[in-house]
Amino acid sequence: MPRYTAPTKDLQFIIHDVLKATESGIPGYDELEADFTGAVLEEAGKIASDVLQPLNTIGDTEGCTLENGVVRTPTGFKAAFEQVKEGGWPGLDMPEQYGGQNMPAIMGTAVGELFSASNQAFTMYQGLTHGAASAILAHGTDAQKDKYLPNMVSCEWTGTMNLTEPHCGTDLGLMRTKAAPQEDGSYKITGQKIFISSGEHDMAENIIHLVLAKIEGGPEGIKGVSLFIVPKFNVNDDGSLGARNGVAVGSIEEKMGIHGNSTCVMNYDEATGYLLGDEHKGMRAMFTMMNEARLGVGMQGLAQADAAYQNAVDYAKDRLQGRAVTGTENPEGPADPLIVHPDIRRSLMDQKSFTEGARAFLLWGATMIDDAHRSGNKDADGLVSLLTPVIKGFLTDQGYDMTVKAQQVYGGHGYIEEWGMSQYTRDARIAMIYEGANGVQALDLVGRKLAQDGGKHVMAFFDLVKTFCKDNSGQDEAYDADFIEPLKAASKDLQAAGMYFMQNGMKNPNHALAGSNDFMHMFGHVCLGLMWARMAKASREALASGTSDVAFHETKLTTGRYYMARQLPATALHLTRIQSGADTVMALDAANF
Amino acid sequence: MPRYTAPTKDLQFIIHDVLKATESGIPGYDELEADFTGAVLEEAGKIASDVLQPLNTIGDTEGCTLENGVVRTPTGFKAAFEQVKEGGWPGLDMPEQYGGQNMPAIMGTAVGELFSASNQAFTMYQGLTHGAASAILAHGTDAQKDKYLPNMVSCEWTGTMNLTEPHCGTDLGLMRTKAAPQEDGSYKITGQKIFISSGEHDMAENIIHLVLAKIEGGPEGIKGVSLFIVPKFNVNDDGSLGARNGVAVGSIEEKMGIHGNSTCVMNYDEATGYLLGDEHKGMRAMFTMMNEARLGVGMQGLAQADAAYQNAVDYAKDRLQGRAVTGTENPEGPADPLIVHPDIRRSLMDQKSFTEGARAFLLWGATMIDDAHRSGNKDADGLVSLLTPVIKGFLTDQGYDMTVKAQQVYGGHGYIEEWGMSQYTRDARIAMIYEGANGVQALDLVGRKLAQDGGKHVMAFFDLVKTFCKDNSGQDEAYDADFIEPLKAASKDLQAAGMYFMQNGMKNPNHALAGSNDFMHMFGHVCLGLMWARMAKASREALASGTSDVAFHETKLTTGRYYMARQLPATALHLTRIQSGADTVMALDAANF
Repeated sequence: MPRYTAPTKDLQFIIHDVLKATESGIPGYDELEADFTGAVLEEAGKIASDVLQPLNTIGDTEGCTLENGVVRTPTGFKAAFEQVKEGGWPGLDMPEQYGGQNMPAIMGTAVGELFSASNQAFTMYQGLTHGAASAILAHGTDAQKDKYLPNMVSCEWTGTMNLTEPHCGTDLGLMRTKAAPQEDGSYKITGQKIFISSGEHDMAENIIHLVLAKIEGGPEGIKGVSLFIVPKFNVNDDGSLGARNGVAVGSIEEKMGIHGNSTCVMNYDEATGYLLGDEHKGMRAMFTMMNEARLGVGMQGLAQADAAYQNAVDYAKDRLQGRAVTGTENPEGPADPLIVHPDIRRSLMDQKSFTEGARAFLLWGATMIDDAHRSGNKDADGLVSLLTPVIKGFLTDQGYDMTVKAQQVYGGHGYIEEWGMSQYTRDARIAMIYEGANGVQALDLVGRKLAQDGGKHVMAFFDLVKTFCKDNSGQDEAYDADFIEPLKAASKDLQAAGMYFMQNGMKNPNHALAGSNDFMHMFGHVCLGLMWARMAKASREALASGTSDVAFHETKLTTGRYYMARQLPATALHLTRIQSGADTVMALDAANF
Repeated sequence: MPRYTAPTKDLQFIIHDVLKATESGIPGYDELEADFTGAVLEEAGKIASDVLQPLNTIGDTEGCTLENGVVRTPTGFKAAFEQVKEGGWPGLDMPEQYGGQNMPAIMGTAVGELFSASNQAFTMYQGLTHGAASAILAHGTDAQKDKYLPNMVSCEWTGTMNLTEPHCGTDLGLMRTKAAPQEDGSYKITGQKIFISSGEHDMAENIIHLVLAKIEGGPEGIKGVSLFIVPKFNVNDDGSLGARNGVAVGSIEEKMGIHGNSTCVMNYDEATGYLLGDEHKGMRAMFTMMNEARLGVGMQGLAQADAAYQNAVDYAKDRLQGRAVTGTENPEGPADPLIVHPDIRRSLMDQKSFTEGARAFLLWGATMIDDAHRSGNKDADGLVSLLTPVIKGFLTDQGYDMTVKAQQVYGGHGYIEEWGMSQYTRDARIAMIYEGANGVQALDLVGRKLAQDGGKHVMAFFDLVKTFCKDNSGQDEAYDADFIEPLKAASKDLQAAGMYFMQNGMKNPNHALAGSNDFMHMFGHVCLGLMWARMAKASREALASGTSDVAFHETKLTTGRYYMARQLPATALHLTRIQSGADTVMALDAANF
């Protein structure tokens, strides 16, 4: 049975030593003293390890069951959900006005990693609710907020996002679900939605579905899509639950993983819905949810990678197999532990250096969200908007690969379900797909975000890297060689790729889009390179100032050097691919595939 | 439900246009006229598409069940196995003396791909039998061969390999299974083996287990390991089945995939065993099986990739989603098919260029095996021995990645089991693990094969590439630029990596082993680069000589150009990693992971 230990120390290091939260000037961050964040993370870590982790295998094995329209979650989920609610965790970063604790997104993200790492399928019930509540918070009327938010913030009621239909996922303009206006201002929603996570279950007394649909007679395509609140049970004006609405689960999907989450086909049959935001502006409203959800999904990539890594390390230390090539290290035993072998270490260092870099990247992203939301900082908003597809696409592609590497450490024991390593890969696999498949993230990055506001945000990113390199070089040769120079080289590759897109994408946009996946990955590497340079700087400073935790900071420096030497150079390969252009990609007639 | 179509045309192209089988001078190859091989592949393709493919999903869904010591295979498996046996497929490349058809390994490999692609779990029953029969053929006495082979060649009896025990897989010296010598020359085998593919099932009247065990009083460790034939039912001298032997299935493993194959815990309780080969030389005998099995596993990587690719292409052509960025391509429809989008094509071209290159690589390997076995060509034997870990490790790592890419093309539909794309990844995953995990393949390559016979074989490989480049350059600028130059550059990277190992591995072997995985992958890329250069040459010649199939050969050239431009440059990244050495890999104390 796998175990999970919250990386509290690493999170504290990032929040305080690297991002220097309390000094950042972001409203609310002055309260994030190390004692306080440490206590929050400690408590969340206990829930993760003691409550959620033991249910992870159970959720995978039992899955959800549908009988007579009722979905049952796996044994123990309901009790655990009560415990999470009682702890106030779902409302951690929600407004006090609606029962939340008003902490910044950085804390919600940090806690989210722990919950997700210990049980992704379970945590999705809460995660989707958070996303739906955020959309209501951003686009709802005061009456809607008052009606729905208190119960959603507490997770008494959960939420869902309903976008996909059998014939359309990415291209939502093809949507067929209809909304018929009623005289009382409500709508009758009719249609079928698929792949609805947490669509129906037995852990909440009501489920608030956010549903995209087309108002009859509205514009064609994506411009005619609106967003609706469709409660499972109608909510009376006094807040009590009214009649059951015309929405029902059709079936539960058999999936590769996240079995503990009920992925439902939802049928809407003249269900009463209430417009959320403006008519025909459903996509805009949905994107509030999507952007938040995309960061959350990027987080899942990292979370599964870390959980799998922790277990791979345990196994590599315990399992005795072969002898170290440089001489026996465990003379008392029949063999040496796996961890003496260079290729096992290579794999573990890949995992470790990714996970820690990704964690810093994600929390850095969260500070920008806080900065944008709490101080209205438009530059922060623009930068995090640029980085959102990178966080989602890179962290989930790489996160998945890391779970595969962790599984590989176990050899045959990684392939049988008994050890739980297969579940990490099966669960992590979905994150590359949902909330916009990673190809769509790459398209969003290259086709939209790069040029947004005249390319201002990508220029700001390059400036930021340049300034960092300038400000921090020339003080220590080893640091320059290990961190600054590789970061400069990788950033130069990224700029060259952007230049290639500008010069060739005008003539033929395929020259840009054929390189979009590579660009997303090289961007991710540069971000992790920057994070490692920043973490190494923080660790050097800690060591220079006589920290008592020398091992932690020395390990950080070594792990960073590994990333810079072994992972970051991938930017050159991505650039080569991008510069080969679209010709070989687009040359074949469809018939010749 | 996925479909599968045998790539008969591509196989014919490789066998005849690229490898020029009939002109090769390898004994038996003169019979491989195109009509003949075409007919064989056509028939095998029908079995694959019509018989095995429809059972693939059933096998995954039903799995094998164990009840009262009896293992039931999924519905339809038994009847299909009868059909495969009746067709004489299991004995295709086995000696006529034992009922086989005596075709060369290249034909066994080609047919094996089709069977494996359509149903890997099913084909393993036959594949393991083939491996066990090969070991008996190579190491058995005449009496043993006469006793076991006819029924194994026909698959009336199936075979297994028993190596792994709960506490040891890679490090077989730790083995605990004991063999007690009996007065009649037989042994009593006692111990437990795990992960035994096809260990027990209901499709054959007898199962011939090949079991590694230690003869009591023999040398310690791996030097005391011997190989034994342990039949499920003892075989009387007249060939009839005698008493049930002391071997029984303990349980069936719950696995991530290949559910249609029974992966068993096998318990040996004073089971009667017969020494195969020499005392204490069990590993040598087992390696006859292992080497064959490793090529077969590399083939599985390619096979699953191709099957998944074929379905991804279908889906990309059918599924309408979005519009081409360069202008609508399907004006009559509500959207364009996925295949218009550059990033979808990028993914499909990755898959296509890998699959076709890998197929050529594998069949080239098979010609060396035939050359070694049939003409005693020691150079061919040495070269294929060098390339075996590359074929196994590179083709299965990459093959798995390709199934993940194919699954990604389906978006959410790739994650639900209904479409069958999840099964391809789950089935393909095992190939990276069994028959020596890929880390062990990399270790075998760098730690053993590179230096074998004084490095003679790797030098021969470099000479071969060099000669090819020299002989084929200077005739066509485009061909030189697209194929020869990239191949030269990649080969140079590979040589530089070998040089790095020589210069640094002496001082500290970790400098070599920390780069072993990268070396295996760069070696694989160079091999596929060579295959693409050879295939492009063949297609150029076909086009120049006025082939009627212009589209096939033009497609081949485009696909090759894609590989050379987008995949082969990975060698530079692998070289960078290798040259970063072992320092960052080995620096951390185990406690600091």
